[in-house]
Parts: sequence; structure tokens; C-alpha cells
Amino acid sequence: MNDLEKQLAFITEIDRLKAVRRQTMVKPDNNRRENSAEHSWHIALMAQVLKSYVEEPVDINRSVSMLLIHDIVEIDAGDTFAFAAQHELDNQEEQEIAAANRLFGLLPDEQFEAMRALWIEFEQAETADARFAKAMDRILPLIQNMANNGGTWVEHKVTKQQVLKRNQYLQAVTPKLWAYACQQIDLAVQNGWLIDQ
Amino acid sequence: MNDLEKQLAFITEIDRLKAVRRQTMVKPDNNRRENSAEHSWHIALMAQVLKSYVEEPVDINRSVSMLLIHDIVEIDAGDTFAFAAQHELDNQEEQEIAAANRLFGLLPDEQFEAMRALWIEFEQAETADARFAKAMDRILPLIQNMANNGGTWVEHKVTKQQVLKRNQYLQAVTPKLWAYACQQIDLAVQNGWLIDQ
Repeated sequence: MNDLEKQLAFITEIDRLKAVRRQTMVKPDNNRRENSAEHSWHIALMAQVLKSYVEEPVDINRSVSMLLIHDIVEIDAGDTFAFAAQHELDNQEEQEIAAANRLFGLLPDEQFEAMRALWIEFEQAETADARFAKAMDRILPLIQNMANNGGTWVEHKVTKQQVLKRNQYLQAVTPKLWAYACQQIDLAVQNGWLIDQ
Repeated sequence: MNDLEKQLAFITEIDRLKAVRRQTMVKPDNNRRENSAEHSWHIALMAQVLKSYVEEPVDINRSVSMLLIHDIVEIDAGDTFAFAAQHELDNQEEQEIAAANRLFGLLPDEQFEAMRALWIEFEQAETADARFAKAMDRILPLIQNMANNGGTWVEHKVTKQQVLKRNQYLQAVTPKLWAYACQQIDLAVQNGWLIDQ
């Protein structure tokens, strides 16, 4: 295959991310489950809108690129619920690395290497660009659940402590959004959407 | 409302793009209709993958930003089929401008102006960045229909001439992808997916 054929094979294959379901509901579309492709769009655009709240200097274009590809491994490895039990997470990392190799591996070598490196950078969250991208991935489900009467928090009997722990990541990266998240979590408890324990 | 409240109102409102249906089918998800949010993800990532085929120098990050917002007006104005009859297009432009003002207008002033300007630049397709973004919007449905036995071309009895005319835009912007499109269109005719007239 020439480069264009490889790139088109990748573009066609990633159509399958539209069939990977997340826990979050899409309220304006009859409360169906959100898929990881539309989630990736939402979060990439959200990162652009909220970029001014980050503490460290960030190359927003790199964060956006990470968010566009951050869930592609789910095509092979599936989506993992944010509050899954530990035994459900066994082998997850291994499966995702294999998925990254297969899926990004459809591309010509240079793009393969670059995209896999970007995905690993996002996963490791050790650079400012990746930390901001990761922070967006933490807070968007909170915003969506708050807009949907508690959404999947209610369904899965999620606790305040679980959501605080998951979003605490925001504290160093974007203190203003962390303050907002804390305030929303308190409101969710008041509304009976999160269990206070 | 303060800036953050405005930004979150926008982020919550654009969830509705996930409920706007296009003509294209998502083959790997039981051939359901694609929505404009997941389409926007697909095309933004495709632009990054295919950026080397553009003739003029392009700021790919601006093209990606355009593609992330290019369909947001459909939340109010709806999606228009690429091969819609002229009478179906009446008032479309007016409705889309009103939609841009309402939706981007949820944001703080500076972001509102910037995002509306970016959307207008995409629509007018007079800059290199916008022309490349527009070219991506032309060729992706072709790639999807070819991967789906002709997809909505068959359903709507679309002709070779219609698809050639729509994709001819690629000729100046990205000759290599234009050559590919022509070859695929011939193949579609051979397969009986496009009417040869």
C-alpha cells in the first residue's frame, strides 16, 4: 500500500469509534448513550474554549490533537467506566497498548510513531499539554451529569468521594475549574445525585 | 453571568449537535445515521492525517479549529443534504447566520467574535486554511460511501456528475486527492453505486 492508501485505511477504520459506547448519556438525543467519537469532538472544542484557565503555559493545539485521538484505542480495548472496580481494569493497559499499535499502525511509519507518541504522552500526563487535556477529560462528564439531573452518577450510585478523587487532578492544573467542580459536587449532593460518604 | 458561566453554557448547549442527523450512514454501528458531532471529530482528525496533500501552505491548526465548529450552526438550522434541491436551500444562509449569532453568542464577547469570524472564514472558503477544511468536508462522505457499498448515493439515486461537481473543488486545493476521488467515482459507477449521466 502507498501512503495515501494507508491513511485512508486508518480514516475508514476509525469510523468504528462511533460504535463505542460510554456511560454518559446524551440528554438532547433521547438520553441515549454517548459514543467516544462525539465525546472526542466535544472535549477537543471544550479545551479550546477553556484554555485560559490553565495554570502552566500550554500549546493548546497539541492538547487538542491529543484529545482527538485519546480514545481511539477503545475501538479494540473498549471504554472503561471512570468508577470501574479494580478487577475490571486488569489487562486494560496491555490491551490499550496493543490497540494503539494496531490502529495507529495502519498509518505510514512517521505518522504512526508521531500519533502513538502523542497518545502515550496523554496517558502519562507528565507534560503541561497532556495534563490540561487530561483535566478536560475529567471535568466534561461532571458538566454533562450536572446538566442531566445527575445522569450516570445516580444510575451507578456514585459517591461524592469518588468524584472528588477523580477531579482532584484539576486542582494543580486549573484551580479555577477545580473550585467550580467542588461547588458542583456539593450541589449534586444537595440534589441527591451523589451519595455523601 | 461571568465568563466561565457563559463558556459552560456554550459547552452544554453544543451537546445538541449530537442529535443532528446527517445523510451518511455509520456502517460499523448498525448502519445508523451519522450525527454532526461525530462527523466533526472524524473530519478534524482526517485533516491532520491528510495535511501533506495540500498545495498551498496551510496552518493546519486553524483548519482543525474550523472543522470543529463548522457544523455547530446546524443545531438551529439543521443539516442540509449535499445534493438537496435548490428550493430546500432557500433561507439556509440566513438561518445559519442567525444560528451562529445565537450559539457562538453564548460565549464571552471576545470568543464569540473569534469563533464567528472563523466560521464565516470557513463558509467563504477564500483563505488557504478554509479551502483545505472545505476540501476535507467534500471528500469524507465520498470515502464513507465507498466503504459502505455506495451508501446514501444509492439511496438517493445520486449521479456521477453531481459527485464530480461537488468534489471538483478538490482539484485546485489538493490535486492528489482529486485524482483519487475521480478514480473512486469511476469505480462507484462500475459498481452501480452512482448513476452515469
